[in-house]
Amino acid sequence: MSPSLDTAGLGARAAEMLDELAQISASADHLTRFFLTPEHRRGADLVARWMRQAGLEVTEDALGTVRGHRPGASPDAPRLLFGSHIDTVENAGRFDGCLGVVLPILALDWLARSGHQAPFGIDVLAFGDEEGSRFPTTLSASAAIAGIFSPSMLAARDSDGVRFEDALRAYGKDPADIPAAAYDPARVIAYVEAHIEQGPVLEVEGEPLGIVTAIAGASRLSVTVTGEAGHAGTVPMRLRHDALLGAAEMALAIERIAVEAGDGMVATVGRVHVEPGAVNVIPARVVFTVDLRSGSDLSRRTALERLEREAHHVADRRGLGVVISAFHEVGTVPCFPDLQRRLAEAAASLGARPVWMPSGAGHDGQAVSRLCPIGMLFVRCRGGISHNPAEYASPADMGLAAGTLVRFIERFEWPGPAGSLREAGESA
Amino acid sequence: MSPSLDTAGLGARAAEMLDELAQISASADHLTRFFLTPEHRRGADLVARWMRQAGLEVTEDALGTVRGHRPGASPDAPRLLFGSHIDTVENAGRFDGCLGVVLPILALDWLARSGHQAPFGIDVLAFGDEEGSRFPTTLSASAAIAGIFSPSMLAARDSDGVRFEDALRAYGKDPADIPAAAYDPARVIAYVEAHIEQGPVLEVEGEPLGIVTAIAGASRLSVTVTGEAGHAGTVPMRLRHDALLGAAEMALAIERIAVEAGDGMVATVGRVHVEPGAVNVIPARVVFTVDLRSGSDLSRRTALERLEREAHHVADRRGLGVVISAFHEVGTVPCFPDLQRRLAEAAASLGARPVWMPSGAGHDGQAVSRLCPIGMLFVRCRGGISHNPAEYASPADMGLAAGTLVRFIERFEWPGPAGSLREAGESA
Repeated sequence: MSPSLDTAGLGARAAEMLDELAQISASADHLTRFFLTPEHRRGADLVARWMRQAGLEVTEDALGTVRGHRPGASPDAPRLLFGSHIDTVENAGRFDGCLGVVLPILALDWLARSGHQAPFGIDVLAFGDEEGSRFPTTLSASAAIAGIFSPSMLAARDSDGVRFEDALRAYGKDPADIPAAAYDPARVIAYVEAHIEQGPVLEVEGEPLGIVTAIAGASRLSVTVTGEAGHAGTVPMRLRHDALLGAAEMALAIERIAVEAGDGMVATVGRVHVEPGAVNVIPARVVFTVDLRSGSDLSRRTALERLEREAHHVADRRGLGVVISAFHEVGTVPCFPDLQRRLAEAAASLGARPVWMPSGAGHDGQAVSRLCPIGMLFVRCRGGISHNPAEYASPADMGLAAGTLVRFIERFEWPGPAGSLREAGESA
Repeated sequence: MSPSLDTAGLGARAAEMLDELAQISASADHLTRFFLTPEHRRGADLVARWMRQAGLEVTEDALGTVRGHRPGASPDAPRLLFGSHIDTVENAGRFDGCLGVVLPILALDWLARSGHQAPFGIDVLAFGDEEGSRFPTTLSASAAIAGIFSPSMLAARDSDGVRFEDALRAYGKDPADIPAAAYDPARVIAYVEAHIEQGPVLEVEGEPLGIVTAIAGASRLSVTVTGEAGHAGTVPMRLRHDALLGAAEMALAIERIAVEAGDGMVATVGRVHVEPGAVNVIPARVVFTVDLRSGSDLSRRTALERLEREAHHVADRRGLGVVISAFHEVGTVPCFPDLQRRLAEAAASLGARPVWMPSGAGHDGQAVSRLCPIGMLFVRCRGGISHNPAEYASPADMGLAAGTLVRFIERFEWPGPAGSLREAGESA
């Protein structure tokens, strides 16, 4: 163990690396780095250079995922995986994804310098397709390492009509090699991803680090409320069937349902379309969306049932029709309790008192969870702002997170007490 | 008095006349008759022919208003005015406006045949610009007879760029003659307009006729609610400033205010714009409209103040900004109590039990109210539907309305007991 862990130095170096990576962009005045583009290539090359500087053996898989490997006691030793993604949204911040690639490289660099040795191997993975900014696919790279890549993804097209498969070949990859990108589940211990929070909780709590309990499941619904158009001046209030007022009550019911769940559930009505949408006509039809997320699938399902019930109650009372249809469903991915505990203890050893919280946003860990237990470490970001040039995490907080990964790896025992990780997982 | 008033015959004839007028349209498959068009010309000519058949002297003023005159005891005798409009919206029904031209012609025809004589003169007016379908002006024709025509209207342009003034000249009129279209207030007794209700109240009440108590004043507001955008998955409910949920509460408060006014006030949120309007982003800004109408200006002002107060209360509680601005204000035009009573008594003499109600829609009477006391008679229309080919009033109801006008004229005393009408007006 390295008692004099220089987290400030690690944080400063992380900031430098993120600045350097942010220079690689499709645009001169803002950061945009899409999957399988020249910018992706240059970003991957920079990450590979850093990995080599940290003593890692670098390879690249059929999806362009850069893999930095630190051997364990034997070539067949099971591996602990770290990683995140280096693609960005358009006009992005520099922390989202990249932080989770830079931090484990810095941690492994520190460990190499401090003479740390482990019986297990360690891989750092830099995925290229998390944001889904280019193709209408997402998590294709992390799906490949988990062995769940769907060949149908190859037919997807970007906004210029370029097929995923053709872009992949132009990037120098052969789709025939994708199956070989998959890890053998028997040879993987766990996957740990560090990421900025992308929300305001840590800032509000005044804590630099968060332990993710689960990547929230999400339901997206389209709700159509049908009433009766009418002249805004001539139809008395008691004779109206105003679709908008029904929708307003439903939106407030949805808020109440999320708040009363009391377990971090969030619900958002983000899009509202009113017909006919004239100043002097009673709304006849309203279509709105609901985005509902929870760290518990049971809680989410219960909320959806209550939402359905309350929407129909409102509709019945007001003489309206209502049709609810789900157009997107992703189940909750729980983080492995044992990994949560280990990450929290590592953070605590550096004086942090991390906040336990679900992740409302999606991450590569969702795909990797099909391969092995996953854990996630959140880093406070200013104002909760993400997907925006104003995205910011302080060097001090990033240093603490790098130090947490160092301590996590130093304290990691493998094989630990027989089946410890698996048992914890089965009870999750 | 004509005891054997054939209301069924009058209604059947009204339906025939409305059918004939509805054939005059800019379109072969639906009814569209705009101001100062060839269709307006043909419609006006047909109305003039009916007027002559009813024994009226026909003239036309500088706005194209057809005026059918029945002389009183002397050429200078004060006149009782009846009328409505013969222009339509696009794809219109055949009753809106035209009914109020056809019914008094039928009433005067009946009275002429029954040998009725009156000391006062009677004019039937067919206005051509009530709907505002062609120019962004409205009530220009009724404003002219009231002496309140604004010359600025002449500069208005239709959607083809044609100026109001040029259209008027092409119609064969000279703007210099507009002042001469105004009646001398000292020579006018009152104005009475029959109109379909354009709302569902009479149908719901099961009564064919309504006595209008006032043409409702209206306020139109734009309400802008400002919150804070955020990731739908990562911002906990307690940290949100969701502009849409604030707007939803305000819309429901507006409904409550109108219902609790308990005096026929109606309020409508018809248009809603949500920004950024994405499924997974907390709404940062919502702009919505409010259309508020009441037969009492005091009641409307009180409601607006309460609306302002409650909107700010909601905004404060949710940490939102709110700005309310009025973009349209029209004061209430009360119908003359004495005319209401006379119309009701005339209807009652035919066995009807008319419903007293405000008019939520606007009418030519609003402009004419600047000239003289006004009264309005509503006729039940099916489903409350108007501005639509499905618009319908039954021959039986129209006949009862024509009969009511006959009785109203027969019983009208002028000069009545000294100052009777004026006194009633002053106490209104």
